[in-house]
Amino acid sequence: MSLTHELRLAADHVWRKILDHPFVIELFSGELPLNKFKYYIVQDYNYLLTMYRCFSLIASKADYKLARKALELAYIEATTEMANYEKLLNKLGMTLDEVVSIEPAPTNIAYMNYLISTCALKSPIHGIVALLPCFWSYGEIAEKHKDMLSRNKNELYVEWAKTYITNEYRELINELRRFIDEYGSSHDKEEFKKIFITASKYEYMFWNMSYVMETWPL
Amino acid sequence: MSLTHELRLAADHVWRKILDHPFVIELFSGELPLNKFKYYIVQDYNYLLTMYRCFSLIASKADYKLARKALELAYIEATTEMANYEKLLNKLGMTLDEVVSIEPAPTNIAYMNYLISTCALKSPIHGIVALLPCFWSYGEIAEKHKDMLSRNKNELYVEWAKTYITNEYRELINELRRFIDEYGSSHDKEEFKKIFITASKYEYMFWNMSYVMETWPL
Amino acid sequence: MSLTHELRLAADHVWRKILDHPFVIELFSGELPLNKFKYYIVQDYNYLLTMYRCFSLIASKADYKLARKALELAYIEATTEMANYEKLLNKLGMTLDEVVSIEPAPTNIAYMNYLISTCALKSPIHGIVALLPCFWSYGEIAEKHKDMLSRNKNELYVEWAKTYITNEYRELINELRRFIDEYGSSHDKEEFKKIFITASKYEYMFWNMSYVMETWPL
Amino acid sequence: MSLTHELRLAADHVWRKILDHPFVIELFSGELPLNKFKYYIVQDYNYLLTMYRCFSLIASKADYKLARKALELAYIEATTEMANYEKLLNKLGMTLDEVVSIEPAPTNIAYMNYLISTCALKSPIHGIVALLPCFWSYGEIAEKHKDMLSRNKNELYVEWAKTYITNEYRELINELRRFIDEYGSSHDKEEFKKIFITASKYEYMFWNMSYVMETWPL
Repeated sequence: MSLTHELRLAADHVWRKILDHPFVIELFSGELPLNKFKYYIVQDYNYLLTMYRCFSLIASKADYKLARKALELAYIEATTEMANYEKLLNKLGMTLDEVVSIEPAPTNIAYMNYLISTCALKSPIHGIVALLPCFWSYGEIAEKHKDMLSRNKNELYVEWAKTYITNEYRELINELRRFIDEYGSSHDKEEFKKIFITASKYEYMFWNMSYVMETWPL
Repeated sequence: MSLTHELRLAADHVWRKILDHPFVIELFSGELPLNKFKYYIVQDYNYLLTMYRCFSLIASKADYKLARKALELAYIEATTEMANYEKLLNKLGMTLDEVVSIEPAPTNIAYMNYLISTCALKSPIHGIVALLPCFWSYGEIAEKHKDMLSRNKNELYVEWAKTYITNEYRELINELRRFIDEYGSSHDKEEFKKIFITASKYEYMFWNMSYVMETWPL
Repeated sequence: MSLTHELRLAADHVWRKILDHPFVIELFSGELPLNKFKYYIVQDYNYLLTMYRCFSLIASKADYKLARKALELAYIEATTEMANYEKLLNKLGMTLDEVVSIEPAPTNIAYMNYLISTCALKSPIHGIVALLPCFWSYGEIAEKHKDMLSRNKNELYVEWAKTYITNEYRELINELRRFIDEYGSSHDKEEFKKIFITASKYEYMFWNMSYVMETWPL
Repeated sequence: MSLTHELRLAADHVWRKILDHPFVIELFSGELPLNKFKYYIVQDYNYLLTMYRCFSLIASKADYKLARKALELAYIEATTEMANYEKLLNKLGMTLDEVVSIEPAPTNIAYMNYLISTCALKSPIHGIVALLPCFWSYGEIAEKHKDMLSRNKNELYVEWAKTYITNEYRELINELRRFIDEYGSSHDKEEFKKIFITASKYEYMFWNMSYVMETWPL
């Protein structure tokens, strides 16, 4: 069994709750209230700003092959992905200035700083392990609920979700997994599991934060 | 008005809620249930492990004078402070192994990773600004509630709290403030305020986490 | 006078020696022995691997605007530039495996680690200041010797040098300068000067290393 | 054979040249001209400032046990060791201000930035591997030449050298070696060797730099 397969199994109890989280279900069925989707998009925009920082940290430390991939992903996220998000914001009637002026919610900040700490203090492979649950779980979510999606009448939601069922997206997940499977040392397996499970918990908490539209307690 | 005085004022709405948080009041009056105190001590032990990491990051980047102070604090925390905590754990009937095996609560992890991210990605002075609310608010708490403390019958709580009313502790706070006041550039004032307020919010949330004995949602 | 103009003036005594270094003169006139050019290209290939690490470190810490530019440059260097170098290596009858197996010379390693240390321990703007002399001096060299280049009969050298007289290249230098001029704090001016002069000295020493084909003393 | 024993063997060709370098021989016999010793001490003072930065970087990333040791060493170097150096400077008729105003020589800067880059971008154990040749070779030098030292008439040199034949010093080397032997993964052995040999070469070049009293080429 590959290392990433082991990681996936170790976090299975968390992933089951992710795959069927009410936010996910209502997003793929189309029933999700628009204000919750808007909330999610604003949070995710901030999350994206952290993703490219994390890939930059990984690129600064990794060997050439992984560094190149990390830079490609960082660059794409800081350009293409950002541009896509800005288009989506426009469709939602929001301006970028508005979004940037909103303080990210506590759970989002906690998740982002967990990723940055891991990528700053640990090895590049530890960093990829921390980032993987985000990429991979979106792929599994889209795969699991693609029938529901085909009946979804909310064009915005459908367009958003389609990205995650493409072959390109599946190949990206496989590529990230291969870095871990090929270069990850079994010496670090227990630590990888801990990181993978923690990041998976944050994925769950991120959906939950969006569903309840979490705010700061003060 | 000194820079740190401005920071303190900017976070005043948060500090008022810190100074009179029920956990704080009950700790200084002696009414705090022991299981809440135990919970707090276990969380704080983990927090201490992050503190010395943060001071190490600051020392790795700072000029000699600040680096030396940061190393002194890091070293003291990793040795004397740790030893004091272990004694306290013994008095509470807990072993170190027990404590280390407990996963820190979400709010604690969020706070710790906020500090690490700030110290890893920002300048040494930004790092000190992030660490200051912890040191400084404990001093203000102890000062504000020292009369209450003199009537507190719980020896454990009194012994714990006494540290924060010593001249040595007050001088430590002043020393940290002086680094910011002397070397902090006014160019960074708005960013310093944001960091100081965020770390103050985390202080509030840490007391709250301990009062409700927060656990992971999954 | 802009901050970068001041930096340029402060290092003028070094730049004069760079602009007329025998390696530079012979490269632009075409008289440079091919084995010296080959030596230079192998060293520069390794230097390039450091450049993208430095831009990654800068991107991990910078605000969005600078981070995006740093990522663009890092990504271009790790892909397009690398590919160009590999083509050039082929023309020189060298394989990539050969090049990668050669240990970089002491001066090159010293320069690379100076850049990495600066980008790892200092602010993003300090990092750009350290990287600027490389970009900028190549522009000045090409500008100063373009007449000589027009009479150069060595196609390889001409093709290599042409890059540095394009408008795109000039615009890149201006863009890097603008980040420093707009975001650099005058508070840091003396430190910027020290970094700019040191990196300029390393530029001079890099040409010199290539001219004498430096090797390790043991 | 322990991992560090393997590292020592892999660098044996370099260590032989270190152990009998003219600077080392003349220092232990007492024949070394005082101006060369002064030059060395000034360079070493700067080197010390880098050592505590490196241990700080290691402490920021290591597990508790290694972090505590790294902090202890960093703190001792930033305080006791620094104070010892200042006393020595006084005996040599130099003030601290003088020393601090001298720019470190190129070889020293190259060595320092190599250590910082390694400690900043690699794992804590990689960092210890980079720092070990300095500690360990001083121990072997002192052991090899202790008879010569017993006939050395230069009190300053004798006092300086005595540190490196104490049991405390030998125990420190053993402790650093144990971290590598216990926690170093065999997965990283080839990289460890490369780092150990490079740092050993820098040790040799540092003695050489001091013997020729190296200056900047411009």
